[in-house]
Amino acid sequence: MKTVGILGGGQLARMLALAGAPLGVRFLVVDNVADACASQVAPQITADWRDFAALENFAKRVDVATFDFENVPADTAHWLAEHVAVFPNPRALATTQDRLIEKTLFRELGLDTPAFAAVDSRADLERAVGEIGYPAVLKTRRLGYDGKGQFRIKSSADIDAAWQALGGAALILEAWVAFEREVSLVAVRGRDGAFSTYPLVQNWHEEGILSATLAPAPGAEALLGPAAGHARAIAEHLDYVGTFALELFVKDGKLLGNEMAPRVHNSGHWTIEGAPCSQFENHVRAVLGLPLGDTSVLGTAVMLNFIGELPDALPVLAEPRAHWHDYGKSPRAGRKVGHATLCANTNAEMRERLARVARALGREAQAAPVLAAL
Amino acid sequence: MKTVGILGGGQLARMLALAGAPLGVRFLVVDNVADACASQVAPQITADWRDFAALENFAKRVDVATFDFENVPADTAHWLAEHVAVFPNPRALATTQDRLIEKTLFRELGLDTPAFAAVDSRADLERAVGEIGYPAVLKTRRLGYDGKGQFRIKSSADIDAAWQALGGAALILEAWVAFEREVSLVAVRGRDGAFSTYPLVQNWHEEGILSATLAPAPGAEALLGPAAGHARAIAEHLDYVGTFALELFVKDGKLLGNEMAPRVHNSGHWTIEGAPCSQFENHVRAVLGLPLGDTSVLGTAVMLNFIGELPDALPVLAEPRAHWHDYGKSPRAGRKVGHATLCANTNAEMRERLARVARALGREAQAAPVLAAL
Repeated sequence: MKTVGILGGGQLARMLALAGAPLGVRFLVVDNVADACASQVAPQITADWRDFAALENFAKRVDVATFDFENVPADTAHWLAEHVAVFPNPRALATTQDRLIEKTLFRELGLDTPAFAAVDSRADLERAVGEIGYPAVLKTRRLGYDGKGQFRIKSSADIDAAWQALGGAALILEAWVAFEREVSLVAVRGRDGAFSTYPLVQNWHEEGILSATLAPAPGAEALLGPAAGHARAIAEHLDYVGTFALELFVKDGKLLGNEMAPRVHNSGHWTIEGAPCSQFENHVRAVLGLPLGDTSVLGTAVMLNFIGELPDALPVLAEPRAHWHDYGKSPRAGRKVGHATLCANTNAEMRERLARVARALGREAQAAPVLAAL
Repeated sequence: MKTVGILGGGQLARMLALAGAPLGVRFLVVDNVADACASQVAPQITADWRDFAALENFAKRVDVATFDFENVPADTAHWLAEHVAVFPNPRALATTQDRLIEKTLFRELGLDTPAFAAVDSRADLERAVGEIGYPAVLKTRRLGYDGKGQFRIKSSADIDAAWQALGGAALILEAWVAFEREVSLVAVRGRDGAFSTYPLVQNWHEEGILSATLAPAPGAEALLGPAAGHARAIAEHLDYVGTFALELFVKDGKLLGNEMAPRVHNSGHWTIEGAPCSQFENHVRAVLGLPLGDTSVLGTAVMLNFIGELPDALPVLAEPRAHWHDYGKSPRAGRKVGHATLCANTNAEMRERLARVARALGREAQAAPVLAAL
C-alpha cells in the first residue's frame, strides 16, 4: 500500500485523500495549522514548511509527495525532491509561482497572453503604463491568488496609489482584457507522459474569487483542441506530473493565457460527480504512476462556490443529482468553505435545477450568469 | 458539525466515512482490532464491544451511533441506545439477528419465505426434515453470515453430520429453494419516515459469499413494486432508520424473503458510482435526519467482489468508467478485500466492458453469469 504525502491540509488535500482512499492509497498531510480540514480524513503532521526535521519525518513516511497549494517555498520543494519523489517537480512549481516567468513561457510556447511588462521600480511602472495603456492591472509576480496582490490602474491618477500599495515587491503590469469570457482547462499528465484533459469549462469570479463553473463551456468545442495543445506543450516543457489547470480568457474568439495552477483546481471540483474519474483521483493516479482515468463529461455540471460561510444545505440535499461539499472549515470572510455541484443530462434540465436551487439558497445573483450562458 | 459513531471499523464503516465526509460529517469508529481499515480515513477507538467505559467515551463524542455489522451484542445496543441516539434501533437489530424471528416477521407482514422450522433438538430436526423434505439447509439462527453456520442436508444420510456440525446452538431448518435467481433490494428510511429504494439488483454467490451484482436486475421491473412494498412494511414495523438490504429469491417468478441486512450492504456497493446518491451517503443522511438522496440508477452497473486477495488493479484502472475499490485490508482467505464497479449507458456497452475487464483480470468465470444475464 502506497502513501501519498501532501504539503498543505486544506480542502484540496481533503478531496485528494477522499478520492485516493478507494484506490487503497494512504495519505499524510503537513500543515502549519493544527486540525487542518484534511486531517479529518487523513493523519496530519503539524509543522511549518521550513521545519526540515518534520519534513524529514514526513519524507520517510511517504512514497511520493505532492502539494495542495502552489506557493511552496523553493528551498522546501528542492529539499523534499532530494529526499522523496515529488510531483509536480520544483521547476514546475517555480515557473508557476512567478507571473512573469509563467507568462513568458506561455508566449515562448505559442500561447498568446495579455500584454505585460516587468515592473521593478516606479520608473518601470511609468514606462510599462506608457506601453500597455489603460486599463491595466499591477500585480505582484509572486504569492498572489484569489485576487490578492493586485491593483487596477484605470488612469494616470491611479499610478501613485498602485505603487504605494504594491511597490517594493517584484511586480508585473498586465493589460486589462475586456474578455468575452473566462474559461479553464483542467488537465493531467502521468509519469509516463500520458496526457488527458477534461472539457473546457466556463468560470465566473466575484471579487477575484471563483464563484461558479459551468462544464462543459457552451459552444467552446472549437477551442478545446487549441487549449489542450497549449496545456500539453506547457506540461511537457515542464515535465509536469499531476493535475493542473490552465486559466484562459476568450477575447475575439481567441484564447489568451492568464495563469497556470500547478495543482487540482477549484474549476475542476465538478469532476467529482460530473466525470467518471475526478481531477483528484487523476492527480493521485498520476503521481503514483498509475494509468490516468476517464475524463469524459457525463451530461452537464455546474459548481457553485461558497465563500465565507455555507448557505443552508437542505435545498441542495433535497434536489436530485445535487451534491453538497462542506469542507469542515470554520466560517471566515473570503475563505472557501464548501461548494455544491449540480448535474443534469441536458442544458434544459440544468436550467430548471439550477434556478430552483439558486432560488431556495437565495443565490439568484450567483447563478444568474450561469443561467444566461446555458 | 455532527459526528457519526460507527461500531465496527471494516470496509462498510470506511465507505460510510468516505461518503459522509463531503457532507461535513465527522466519524469515529470503534473496533476491537487496532488499525481497522476504516481508521485510515477516520479516528478509531480500539475497544471490545462490551467495554462499557470505552463505549461511554464513544457515546459522549458522537451525535448519533450506527453499525457496520449486524451482530452487535444486544446488551451493547441497548446500553448505547440509553446514552446516545442509535440507528437502526436495538429492536431492529435483534429481529434481524435471529433467522427464525426474521422469517416469522416476513411472513406476518405478507412476504412469503421458503418453508422453515425451529430446531432446538435432534428430535426437532427429524420432525422438521419430515415436514420440509430434501434438500434442506440447517442453519444457526444467530451469528451466521457469508455462508457460515450452515449445513446442507440432501438426504437422511446427512442428518447425523448436520447435527454434529451445528447441534447445541439454536437452529432453523429451511427448505432449499431451486430459485431462478437471487435479487436484493437496498432501501433507506429516514428519521421522518421518508422511504426510498434503489432498483432491484441481481446477485451471484460463490461459496456463500457475494461474487457479483448486476444493477438493475434485468427484466425485474414488475418485481420492484412488490419488493419495495415488503421492504417498506418491514422497515415501518421495526421503525427502522438507515440503509438496509432485503435479500430475496425469485422462484416461479415470485419473491421469497431470504434475509434482511440491517446496514449498508455489499449488493449496494455499485451505488457509489452508479447512482447519484450512494447507499453510504444515504445511510449517513438518514441517521442524521437529513433529506434522503436521489436513488435513481444511471445506466447499468456491475460490481465484482474480490475475496481473499485483490487481482491486478491495472485492467480496471485502464478501463473507462471502471472504478477500483481497495479496502486497505491485508489479504486473508474468505476476506472481502475490495471490489470493482463498472458503469455503462447500455447493456451492450456493459457486455463489452465486462468481458474485456474480466479477461484482463483472469476473472472470466466470475463474470460469466453476469454476461449471460445482460
